[in-house]
Amino acid sequence: MSDGGFDRMWADLESVGRVSSGGYRRFAWTAEDHALREWFAGECEARGLDLVQDRMGNQWAWWGDPDTDGPGVVVGSHLDSVPDGGAYDGPLGVVSGLAALDALRDKGFTPKRPIAVVNFGDEEGARFGVACAGSRVITGAMTAERALGLTDADGVTMAEALRQAGRDPGAIRRDDETLRRIGQFVELHVEQGRALADLDPATSAVAIGTDIWPHGRWRIDLPGTANHAGTTALSDRRDAMLSAAQVVLAAREAATTNGCVATTGKIAVEPGGVNAIPSHVRLWLDARGADQNAVRATVSAVEKAATGCGGTLTEESWTDTTRFDDDLSGRLRQILGEHTPMLGTGAGHDAGVLATAGISTSMLFVRNPTGVSHSPEEFAERDDCLHGVDALTKVVQELAS
Amino acid sequence: MSDGGFDRMWADLESVGRVSSGGYRRFAWTAEDHALREWFAGECEARGLDLVQDRMGNQWAWWGDPDTDGPGVVVGSHLDSVPDGGAYDGPLGVVSGLAALDALRDKGFTPKRPIAVVNFGDEEGARFGVACAGSRVITGAMTAERALGLTDADGVTMAEALRQAGRDPGAIRRDDETLRRIGQFVELHVEQGRALADLDPATSAVAIGTDIWPHGRWRIDLPGTANHAGTTALSDRRDAMLSAAQVVLAAREAATTNGCVATTGKIAVEPGGVNAIPSHVRLWLDARGADQNAVRATVSAVEKAATGCGGTLTEESWTDTTRFDDDLSGRLRQILGEHTPMLGTGAGHDAGVLATAGISTSMLFVRNPTGVSHSPEEFAERDDCLHGVDALTKVVQELAS
Repeated sequence: MSDGGFDRMWADLESVGRVSSGGYRRFAWTAEDHALREWFAGECEARGLDLVQDRMGNQWAWWGDPDTDGPGVVVGSHLDSVPDGGAYDGPLGVVSGLAALDALRDKGFTPKRPIAVVNFGDEEGARFGVACAGSRVITGAMTAERALGLTDADGVTMAEALRQAGRDPGAIRRDDETLRRIGQFVELHVEQGRALADLDPATSAVAIGTDIWPHGRWRIDLPGTANHAGTTALSDRRDAMLSAAQVVLAAREAATTNGCVATTGKIAVEPGGVNAIPSHVRLWLDARGADQNAVRATVSAVEKAATGCGGTLTEESWTDTTRFDDDLSGRLRQILGEHTPMLGTGAGHDAGVLATAGISTSMLFVRNPTGVSHSPEEFAERDDCLHGVDALTKVVQELAS
Repeated sequence: MSDGGFDRMWADLESVGRVSSGGYRRFAWTAEDHALREWFAGECEARGLDLVQDRMGNQWAWWGDPDTDGPGVVVGSHLDSVPDGGAYDGPLGVVSGLAALDALRDKGFTPKRPIAVVNFGDEEGARFGVACAGSRVITGAMTAERALGLTDADGVTMAEALRQAGRDPGAIRRDDETLRRIGQFVELHVEQGRALADLDPATSAVAIGTDIWPHGRWRIDLPGTANHAGTTALSDRRDAMLSAAQVVLAAREAATTNGCVATTGKIAVEPGGVNAIPSHVRLWLDARGADQNAVRATVSAVEKAATGCGGTLTEESWTDTTRFDDDLSGRLRQILGEHTPMLGTGAGHDAGVLATAGISTSMLFVRNPTGVSHSPEEFAERDDCLHGVDALTKVVQELAS
């Protein structure tokens, strides 16, 4: 199988933002992000594509003119990462999109409709805490005002970060002109679980996405009383860390009972000294599942545990089930064959944000042999990746004919 | 009761390093620390005391010449704080020492032996993680090499911090010349528990310290596997946060069973994203008690919980019971009266480091009505503080006669 430049592009990206863990730290509007955006611009220029940025700075590389001949067929994903993220989550979709374009040109294909590869900014929300910031702002799902006021771990607002990256924070907003150019969006992504790996190896290198599970994020605040760790009798203590331990275990138990998933991956302890009894613990809960009622029941059980310790639970975000366009997914299945698996996912994606905005959207998932993601160990076999490029090539060829 | 300048000095210090919580962040070799050192130097200059710094930068203000007429009687404590610490832990001893000198001069006392007030640096270890760094280095309990290599939360070594504070890291070392000048050291300190508050109010404003409990600090490393919070089935997870929750609860249970105290006040989670399953949790345990075997049994139980989760427990520090000089404590009781309570403490102090180094050392504790310490709510009644100054004045007068 020809790789359509896949291997070379993959090698180009390998060192950008890599940290000692072997994973990546590619956060929005940092030097690493800038290097990735420049790399994308260079790839597009080398292919003679017309690169435009929308009002949030997402990069769109067009083959053909979407304003005269559109709307067009869009593929792509994102290049940013979570802390110590893997190489595939995001970049696989961007690189596969460019490789698919190369494959179409190699075979002399002339598109009837314009085709674009997109690089969405700040998909992971690793720096400012809100995932899919790039697509949320251009679709109006997040206001510019809220986005600009988000702060990173150093207290830098997104507005300041944009200025430091040489951009005008006043320019960001909903962008209907960009949305109008999108006829269909197909986001290819590495699978982030083991659903495909558990199926027949012969037919499961690539799946078609059907929906994104309902999911949300909650903040749990647990009070205590700061005091000296050596001189305060156990009976005089009000230790917020003990409450946090109980809530962490309650979340796992509730998720098991309700058949969904719950995670407490982030915690902040005050004052945070080895010899100080914690006066406050803030803990974040991520909960998702195929069934919305199961997720809600899990969160209720966690809230009960938190309030039992004198704490509170606050919803920071909630998203109902997001169905991709069933007609488009059906067409993908015709193109790729009836054996192609159909897959719902517990992960959020820009494709979900666009689907919610009413754009015809679907996804392709590439098999992940271990299911590991958001980790340096995230992996996909090269052959499976090239099957993904091949599937994307077929899909774009059909949709753009 | 005359306050010997106590109120004015107390007011001087009130705003230095104060943060929004109402507590203090006065960390070693920072701008706040510099301001406190300058304040101390100014107070000593105004009293015509001879201010010298030892090889670790601890400040000693002498009334009289310890090299010709010594060794002398030393009082004082420290001015640094834990994160969001209280106003009393440390400063009460320094301010009371200066106020006691004022009281002695007011009554026309002429010392037969030199008297000093000391301000020990970096007692809390809030920045570099090792408590009593100032006294440990000059007594040789910690080598200069180890001290200089300690790092703060930003990765700044103590060597760099010293350089940034305009000091020569190469100069720090064990300082026998300074130690030889100390005949007796009496550290006055706010009590950090409620032992005095539970006694007869008429006779318990001030107590004499007898010993410091055995205590230690352990690091617990708990492994997990980083993975996506939305797409990884519960049964596929290896979540380090669940292990941490179990260890936190096991520590409390073991301390209760063994009749000592255990605290987990600091935690570090990797990668630390809301939507990432923790791949590693590092948790610190502080354990202390009147009985060394009880503390060891508690730590063994915690280690069992950690290894049960595939983790490890590593001892970072351990200190056996530190007895102050029984002869000196007995003499303090003669001076202050047989009604004066005698008190062991679960907190570490520079007095303990000096006692371990063979210096004749004791402590005075001032009543703390709530027992709260290492917190913005830490408090002592003004009358009790002035009783402390009065007790310290009597002690110094007797010892220096």
